[in-house]
Amino acid sequence: MSAFTPQVRLRLDGQALAANWCSLARLSGNAATGAAVKANAYGLGAREVVARLSNAGCRDFFVAHWGEAEAIADIVTPGQIAVLNGVRHEDVRAVIALGAVPVLSTPHQIATWKAASGGRCHLMLDTGINRLGIGPEQMDPELFQGLEIDILASHLASADENNPQNASQLSHFIAMSAGIKANRKSLANSAGIMLGNGFHFELTRPGLALYGGMARDDMADHIAQVVYPEALILQTRLLKAGDTVGYNATFTCHDTMRVATAAIGYADGYARGLSGLGRFTHDGKLLPVIGRVSMDLVTLDISTAPEIVEGQWIDVQYELANISELSGRSQYELLTGLGTRSSRYWT
Amino acid sequence: MSAFTPQVRLRLDGQALAANWCSLARLSGNAATGAAVKANAYGLGAREVVARLSNAGCRDFFVAHWGEAEAIADIVTPGQIAVLNGVRHEDVRAVIALGAVPVLSTPHQIATWKAASGGRCHLMLDTGINRLGIGPEQMDPELFQGLEIDILASHLASADENNPQNASQLSHFIAMSAGIKANRKSLANSAGIMLGNGFHFELTRPGLALYGGMARDDMADHIAQVVYPEALILQTRLLKAGDTVGYNATFTCHDTMRVATAAIGYADGYARGLSGLGRFTHDGKLLPVIGRVSMDLVTLDISTAPEIVEGQWIDVQYELANISELSGRSQYELLTGLGTRSSRYWT
Repeated sequence: MSAFTPQVRLRLDGQALAANWCSLARLSGNAATGAAVKANAYGLGAREVVARLSNAGCRDFFVAHWGEAEAIADIVTPGQIAVLNGVRHEDVRAVIALGAVPVLSTPHQIATWKAASGGRCHLMLDTGINRLGIGPEQMDPELFQGLEIDILASHLASADENNPQNASQLSHFIAMSAGIKANRKSLANSAGIMLGNGFHFELTRPGLALYGGMARDDMADHIAQVVYPEALILQTRLLKAGDTVGYNATFTCHDTMRVATAAIGYADGYARGLSGLGRFTHDGKLLPVIGRVSMDLVTLDISTAPEIVEGQWIDVQYELANISELSGRSQYELLTGLGTRSSRYWT
Repeated sequence: MSAFTPQVRLRLDGQALAANWCSLARLSGNAATGAAVKANAYGLGAREVVARLSNAGCRDFFVAHWGEAEAIADIVTPGQIAVLNGVRHEDVRAVIALGAVPVLSTPHQIATWKAASGGRCHLMLDTGINRLGIGPEQMDPELFQGLEIDILASHLASADENNPQNASQLSHFIAMSAGIKANRKSLANSAGIMLGNGFHFELTRPGLALYGGMARDDMADHIAQVVYPEALILQTRLLKAGDTVGYNATFTCHDTMRVATAAIGYADGYARGLSGLGRFTHDGKLLPVIGRVSMDLVTLDISTAPEIVEGQWIDVQYELANISELSGRSQYELLTGLGTRSSRYWT
């Protein structure tokens, strides 16, 4: 714990997170609803997210790396954690000791798991994203013999669009999974949940939407914002007409202007693409970013809020779909890019 | 320490880092040369960077936040660490206890420091970036009385361009600093070093160039690459003509094609803008990224390297100026976006 007060922080709305999961669980109908918490729960902080979703009723957590499973294995039953990147021979003893469950994606991984008598596992089928999973050309009934498969999964490539690939992947999934013995099937990510009951099977596994992202426009009514960045004002000044602001002088004051510099920059995940486009707020007043976003700082036009003084906290407008459009960066990248320098506090 | 082997890592070239600092020190002529190590040394890892630069002879380290000073204060003499974001009243006792030195930027910070009898400090003058520092309208000889100023600094806005703003800031700096008693003056960042002796004063403070970034084209002969990402191959497959790869099926195989999926994605800082554009290498062979970069994964065309098998490490092409051009993301953002999931090892 630092002896110093932070200058940039994320307010995280725990009620919104839980409400988003509950909405997605409702939209998932009779299917159970898991949660993708890989990449440190999309940047929010995996331990806090997992604890909250577990309280809300979530029982299936998906990470990419074993280090990510290890980081949450004291919060939930390790067997509730699925590791998407599979298992390597070098790790198999540590994997079994930890008790989290690999999602097997290749014949080699399956052989490794069988040789280690690993027990319960998950299996990924590739139905068209061609990224991870057993492909159609690798299907062989003997391959799966002796596996104790809990979740039989595949992953959608185009669920954020109304695209024929969705129906194609669905029918491949049904065909490829026929004859494979498994406790549960799972296909839908956040966007896939919106494609209807046919895509839900026994388990859905949303990610982006949990954290306030709009995987599809038709989710807007169901999903609330979770992440609210805040930054400390370090300085205010009165500039004069003709003064320029920031790197490469991209902004010029047309008149006398009150400006403030706040302690947040692209090193904190506030994308440089928001230069001249982002907005902050204070008491309901909009404060435009002027000039370039720097590594650690942004400068704001506070003409409408002359009451702002150094040492105050101000709010960053951070509605993900909107910020994605302004910055040209995907909602996913905006979340996973949230910096480690920000302290995180839950409300 | 995790019990598991990582699947994504950064090889960091310690000799290149030290050589870059030495090159910048040579280019800085008679001036001493510091180092900007804020934002976790631009994502590389501040503790390792500071230890190496200290060994190379660096004696002045610049961070933005007090937590960043705290994180390296056992590696170098705390008085060698300058904290650019200044000092707050709430922190002043902890600041004095730590012994790192604030860069004062506002009359309020100066008053706080005087009231606390903080001793040695640095002072930032704003000569035209209009971001942090005492502005021309705030200049008042009494303001600085009683301050024990070590570094009197300002910051260049357009040093990466041949722009009249550079000469303008230089002349403002000379004019504003006249009559202010200080041990040393400092104006030049990485790019500023290339503007010539007139910009060097007693101390330069490069950042980007230390880490292999090209702040200006004319630095190419002096700066070597430091950061080399590497990723583990999780899977190889043989796709057929008509198969598509990745989210939204942006890549279609025109023929039978060997592909591999590697464990690096935009959560690790490998920008989504490199979809279909980035390249990996293996034994000198170029492996193009096909389809979209995902959060945790990329898929590669390994037609020219059929010897690649799952479990192998492969190299990511990551020459910063080139990757910046391909991805549309600044070199600074590429560095500070390097993910925390990557293990870092120095060679």
